[in-house]
Amino acid sequence: MIPLSDAIKYAQDQRPRFLDELTHFCKIPSISNDEDYRDDVKRAAGWLADYFDKMGMQHTQIFPTGRHPIVYSEWLQAGSAAPTVLVYGHYDVQPAEPETLANWHSAPFEPVIKGENIYARGTTDMKGQILASVFAVEAYLKTGRLPVNVKFMIEGEEEIGSLHLVDFMKEQRDLLSCDVFLNPDTGMIAADLPTISYGLRGLAFFELYIYGPSKDLHSGAFGGAVHNPALALCQILAGVHDQNKRVLLPGFYDKVRELSFEDRAEIAQLPKDDNFYLQQTGVPALWGEVGYTSEERVGSRPTLEINGLYSGFIAVGTKTVLPSYAMAKISTRLVPDQYPDEINLMFQEYLKKNVPNTVSWELKYLGGSPASLSERSSPGIRAVTRAFESVWKKKPLFKREGGSVPVVLYAKEILGVETVNIGFSLPEDGMHGPDEKLHLPTWEKGIQALIHFFDNLNNQKDG
Amino acid sequence: MIPLSDAIKYAQDQRPRFLDELTHFCKIPSISNDEDYRDDVKRAAGWLADYFDKMGMQHTQIFPTGRHPIVYSEWLQAGSAAPTVLVYGHYDVQPAEPETLANWHSAPFEPVIKGENIYARGTTDMKGQILASVFAVEAYLKTGRLPVNVKFMIEGEEEIGSLHLVDFMKEQRDLLSCDVFLNPDTGMIAADLPTISYGLRGLAFFELYIYGPSKDLHSGAFGGAVHNPALALCQILAGVHDQNKRVLLPGFYDKVRELSFEDRAEIAQLPKDDNFYLQQTGVPALWGEVGYTSEERVGSRPTLEINGLYSGFIAVGTKTVLPSYAMAKISTRLVPDQYPDEINLMFQEYLKKNVPNTVSWELKYLGGSPASLSERSSPGIRAVTRAFESVWKKKPLFKREGGSVPVVLYAKEILGVETVNIGFSLPEDGMHGPDEKLHLPTWEKGIQALIHFFDNLNNQKDG
Repeated sequence: MIPLSDAIKYAQDQRPRFLDELTHFCKIPSISNDEDYRDDVKRAAGWLADYFDKMGMQHTQIFPTGRHPIVYSEWLQAGSAAPTVLVYGHYDVQPAEPETLANWHSAPFEPVIKGENIYARGTTDMKGQILASVFAVEAYLKTGRLPVNVKFMIEGEEEIGSLHLVDFMKEQRDLLSCDVFLNPDTGMIAADLPTISYGLRGLAFFELYIYGPSKDLHSGAFGGAVHNPALALCQILAGVHDQNKRVLLPGFYDKVRELSFEDRAEIAQLPKDDNFYLQQTGVPALWGEVGYTSEERVGSRPTLEINGLYSGFIAVGTKTVLPSYAMAKISTRLVPDQYPDEINLMFQEYLKKNVPNTVSWELKYLGGSPASLSERSSPGIRAVTRAFESVWKKKPLFKREGGSVPVVLYAKEILGVETVNIGFSLPEDGMHGPDEKLHLPTWEKGIQALIHFFDNLNNQKDG
Repeated sequence: MIPLSDAIKYAQDQRPRFLDELTHFCKIPSISNDEDYRDDVKRAAGWLADYFDKMGMQHTQIFPTGRHPIVYSEWLQAGSAAPTVLVYGHYDVQPAEPETLANWHSAPFEPVIKGENIYARGTTDMKGQILASVFAVEAYLKTGRLPVNVKFMIEGEEEIGSLHLVDFMKEQRDLLSCDVFLNPDTGMIAADLPTISYGLRGLAFFELYIYGPSKDLHSGAFGGAVHNPALALCQILAGVHDQNKRVLLPGFYDKVRELSFEDRAEIAQLPKDDNFYLQQTGVPALWGEVGYTSEERVGSRPTLEINGLYSGFIAVGTKTVLPSYAMAKISTRLVPDQYPDEINLMFQEYLKKNVPNTVSWELKYLGGSPASLSERSSPGIRAVTRAFESVWKKKPLFKREGGSVPVVLYAKEILGVETVNIGFSLPEDGMHGPDEKLHLPTWEKGIQALIHFFDNLNNQKDG
């Protein structure tokens, strides 16, 4: 137990420096979806690789891809008897926009500490999460010996659909071989409720274009005689949900597994009732698929969301334009057995049947990833369960997450391992929104929990 | 007849310089809805005032308003027996955006002549139209004597709802007193079909905001449990029209006058059938209120149009955001007896009844103006009818216009005069859209027709 307690002490002592490193990392605007930030994304990869080298990791490499690089590093001195953990992460972040309207209280890439939180884009999703694992490993490396072999694989394209990750994992299957796959990109239900996510929803991204007149028209000269494409888009999108808030793409629910009585009972145990959702979102009233609780809707049911709408004139003032086209960004969240390619076909079919002949349309499929469910009795999940018990002095909650991390499915399919989905992000951390933040006391407990996790993994292997 | 033919000859001789002046005028980006262009708007007013002075007009004044100034100038030497014409115009223009997507083939404020057309924002709406009247007056002033008294009142706020015009006209009622009000801001059906517009639709402008979560949310963590405001907006807007494409605001049609058999027969004579609308708009099929022809829908029926839509993330790429709000810019085109204030109340009432409690809403009323119908037997309309016959060698068409020019109503109410609505804009000129243009042969005929118009007006008075 000496290495464990030394490592914990190291982490406590290094708290100010850890915070400093997090601040540096978050200052880099590594926005992956915007070519203007390509160099910043690269800089974030470089910063991480340098840090791996400084802390004593080995064979650090930056693998270029068609777009943003993947950072790999390893420490394999624990011996062949010890298990190997592959830690996943992504150093890219969401865009900060819309900065003006959406109320960032401080600059998105100038981290600010207020009270118990640090505010900046990427703090919770997921630079803070990456560094929690990195610092847990460092704590062992600097004080003695790491009880397990560790590999890091940190990509720069998660926020744009992990474009090159699957090919990389296939090509580097040997390099990445492992016993446990750790994905610290999920979160906790509350600061005092350590949480393990055993399910993640999948995703399919779309852009829907509705085309009307060949160019913008004067709404006086032509309004009333042609189908306004903005109206047509609204009508089409309004029609995608029925009265019960179910998605009407043909076959959308065909493969969806119904929740068992036991599943529903367990979900009902989570402290995430309607009040939780009302409080977290600030909406006047909740909404969702009839027949399910909010938590079931988010974790276990597929959805179709509009992420963006655009048509015509949206600047200040008035313009009597009849727009030539309208566009919606749409994503569907998928549950196990729903596949993005199939959803794309359903959507195309839906539009073929439902778009009137007064406009034309185009559905661009921008990619996606299927959902995943993890084996809850795996050694990794047992090790993290005990680690959470040690730090928080209570049993962790098990939940299915509404979010999507495609890599979990690849870990299973390509590397043949189960994933441990954890993270120290809180629901109120504003992931993807303005004022993104990280709760520092939870983050510090998280680092401790990861130190325990590595130790537990080895003990389990031995015992 | 000598002054008339001298003036016509002058206009023909000056053609190259007239075109040069138009080019200068159109180079000024006098976009009234954007504060960044405030100085340019002012510059356009100054250019015009200078031109009035140079050509021999008198008492030119630039009247400041709360926002963009009004240019006034007069020539009153025709004697008290001659009629006085007040020429209206607006020197402000629509924004050029969206420049990238909407295919301007040349820079919007760098006029380019290609074939028989000159391309630039403002050429047809309505700097070219203003200058047609100006040059017709100049042709008399430079060659002899103008047969009528002329006043010009050229505002800079038409594209933003003529914010200060009505107050100005009330305050300056004496200065503006006249016998005929000339509004050259409408158009012709085709280059060989001179047209007089005796009806204009009114307008009411709105911005509708639908508010959901208190900030942008992660669509994975919350998607499915709250009403996405972009979806709610689509549902609300989709619900505003019924199956027959009628607007469902309560009471919207209550005051609308039904077209008489004679009205419909006359409209049916216009060469604006479905093919015309298909060709002008490029839509795959027409759409509109059931029971009316396209031309009836545009000229004689009220409509509700979406001019712009915005929500969430609309840049390149994907972002799994559940937006906190969604916005639509909406305008209704009104027919006689519909009043914008009443439409606002109807819209508010509609939203009160139809917006679900899962979101909140705000309807901003941005102003408007009622519709107008002119007396077709007025001296002004008789004079312009004969003028068109002289130049085009055929009887002009009478039509009701889909567009809106608030000033026509003010002319009647404040100055007590009937308006002559004409203009040399063609349907394919792309008013308010990209590649706005003016057809130069039609414009030159228009200048000649206006020279005839002033002469006819005086002959009429005499005869």
